Formats: sequence, C-alpha cells, structure tokens
Amino acid sequence: MPKLVDHERRRAEIIDATLRLVARDGLGGATMRAIAKELGVANGAIGHYFTNQDALLAATYEEVFARTNGRAAERAAGRRGLDALLATLRELLPMDAVTVDEARIVVCFWGRITTDERLRALLPKEHEAWTRSVQQMLEQAIEDCDLSAEAEPAPLAELLVTTVHAMQVRAVTLPHRTPPSMQRLLIEQILKPWTEPGTSLRGRWPADVAALHDPAEVPVDRSLLHS
Amino acid sequence: MPKLVDHERRRAEIIDATLRLVARDGLGGATMRAIAKELGVANGAIGHYFTNQDALLAATYEEVFARTNGRAAERAAGRRGLDALLATLRELLPMDAVTVDEARIVVCFWGRITTDERLRALLPKEHEAWTRSVQQMLEQAIEDCDLSAEAEPAPLAELLVTTVHAMQVRAVTLPHRTPPSMQRLLIEQILKPWTEPGTSLRGRWPADVAALHDPAEVPVDRSLLHS
Repeated sequence: MPKLVDHERRRAEIIDATLRLVARDGLGGATMRAIAKELGVANGAIGHYFTNQDALLAATYEEVFARTNGRAAERAAGRRGLDALLATLRELLPMDAVTVDEARIVVCFWGRITTDERLRALLPKEHEAWTRSVQQMLEQAIEDCDLSAEAEPAPLAELLVTTVHAMQVRAVTLPHRTPPSMQRLLIEQILKPWTEPGTSLRGRWPADVAALHDPAEVPVDRSLLHS
Repeated sequence: MPKLVDHERRRAEIIDATLRLVARDGLGGATMRAIAKELGVANGAIGHYFTNQDALLAATYEEVFARTNGRAAERAAGRRGLDALLATLRELLPMDAVTVDEARIVVCFWGRITTDERLRALLPKEHEAWTRSVQQMLEQAIEDCDLSAEAEPAPLAELLVTTVHAMQVRAVTLPHRTPPSMQRLLIEQILKPWTEPGTSLRGRWPADVAALHDPAEVPVDRSLLHS
C-alpha cells in the first residue's frame, strides 16, 4: 500500500512543519498558507490532509502529547516508584531545548482553548492519563518505603501534574526565572515533607539532570527564590 | 480639566470592552474593529487612545492584574499571616464567576506572550510582587506559630503562586475538574505538612469560600482526584 504510506508520511510532515511554526511564531504564525510555504507546496495542498486549520491544530496538539509521552515512557522503562516518577517529570518539565519548545507550543494552544471546542476536548484525556500514571508511581514509592505511608497519592499526583502545567507557563512567561534547578527545587518542595528519612530526592533525578545542574558544579541559585 | 477626565474615562471604557470580548471570544475576538463595534463608535476612534492593538492588549492585561490585586488587597486588609494568605488566594484562584473570567483572559494572553515582547515584559513585575507578598504572609504565619519554623517561605511562596497559575490554566482547560473544593484541597496539600498541630486550614478560608463549599453541606467530591 504505497499510497497509504505516502499519505501518512505527508500528514506527519505537515504536523512537523506546524510544530516548528507554532514554536517560532505562535499560533498566529501557523496559517494553512504559512505551512504550505514552509513545506514548499501549493496553498491548497494541505487541504487534502486536513479539512481546515482547526483539524490541523488538533492533530498537532495531539502530536506534542504523543512525543512527550513517548520520551517519558522510554525514560521510565524498567523503573518504578520514585525513580520512575523523577524520570517522567524530567520529560514533562521544560528543562531543555526540546521540552521548552513543547511548553511554548502547549501554552499557545491553551490560549486558544477557550474558543476551540475540539482542542478543549483533547486535554482531559491526557491530563487524566498523566495523573493516573503519576499516582501509580507515588503508590509504588510508598510501597518501596521512599515516601511515608501518610502521603496521599491522589492529591499529590494532582499537585505534581498541576506544577508541570505551571512550569510550562513560567518557562514561557518568565524564562529567566525558570531554570531547571528552580523546577527541581519546587518538585522537591512538594515531595520532601513525605520522604522517608534517608531518601534523597536530589540524588534520584536522572543522571543528565543531575549532571547539568549538579549544585557542586553549578551552584543552585537560591537568590532566584528571593529576587 | 474636563477633557482629561473624559480621556481617562473613555480609555477605561475601551479596556472594559476589550476585557468582555477577550473573556467571551478569546484574543482573536478582540480586534480594534470588534471593540469599536462593541462600543458603538467609528472604527478609527480607538486609535486616538491606543496606537495599535498591541498597546491596547498590554493595557488590558495590566488592568486584569490591577483588578485582581485591588480585590485581594481589600480582602487581606486588617489581616496577617495565614488569614491574609488564604484571603489573598481566594481572589487569585479561579473560584467564582469573576476570577474564572480573569483566568480565561490571562490564559489567552499567555498564549500570545511567546510572540509579544510588550506583554512578556509585564508579567515578571506582577509575578515578583505576588511572590514577595505571599512570602511575607508565610513569614508572619511562622511568627504566629500557625506554620512550623522549618517551613521555607521562599520556595513555598513560589509553589503557591505557581499553583495559582496552574489553577488558572486548569479552570480554562478542564473546567469540570477544577471546582473550588479541589483548588482548596491542593492549597491545603501544599501547606498541610508545615501547619502546627491545632492549626486547621479548612477553618481559616474566608467565610464565603467556606460557606459555598462547606463539606458538611456540599460533600467534597474526592472522586475528582481519582477519576
């Protein structure tokens, strides 16, 4: 079925171009015309794949989630509890060029969600999947005695997922006050009251976060919290 | 100086119309033309007060903050520490028709912030003012022995302000999963580990929040945290 393969590949290329344009120019920059230009095709060509801009944007928004979730699942593979949680958060939080770009894209979409039914319908599904998965990891962390039995996994999961959304807003609106070290501090602030003695959160983040922002190498700038 | 008064009043009317349009139709609905129509004036009339749409939107965004801050200051007047904090949060969180409308407006603006320098420049000032003020209230709460001396006011203040932003996003993107009772639960989840024995957070929220969402009258739907 070479035709179908071509169709799918072309569709993916259009979504890819849309992601680039939204990250660079916001949603205002992602018109059907601009995307056709970016791909070097005729103005009408996109219409064969997406009936209108709303349909294209909904598909693009789903693609952002799929990419984030794919990377998070890869990182968390073979881990459980606290380690799986921190590995997942490392891909959800805007900590590097890829995740900061994703934050810019989702925040643009949220700005449109008040007036776009189709986009609004997509988020609850993703939000519930994230919250459920984070809650499971918290339950495992309690089983593993990394977190206290008094920790309540459900509200803690809501708070963590909520903090991810908030960090995405902050990375866009206050980029200079949202370095990875600050994001890590806030997550640790949420979990710290529930960690069992001897459980170090700082030492459990994935190695690349720890290496990039090791307080021994790059001192955590606590003045960020006071300025 | 009747001329100046007229000018100021007219300017305020334009901002007011813009706020109504953004809350209803998103930023896409707040064109200079739509605002002129809403006010029943000629298309060119707005240009006497704002050089372009960007300038008008920046002024509108500042007005949202001014209104929120005005109400929060009024509520917190004569209070300190934990009581001042909960009174302030009651006006920042999207808990009623007015604050939900404000959330719809700021979330729209954030979606535009990636590509609008002027808007981006406004947020840090407001964010820092909120964080500083929340931090002061937390310090007072520690002095008053409502919060433990081990609580760290700076990261806690960041976490609380961050949670306000996140709740504004949620109220827009997941309106049915963001009732006031859930917002209150998350704030209590953040503060609970640091409250001194005998300090009830639930009993300290402003009376109207407590009355509207008293668990005795309207059971807190904890399934919201699990669905």
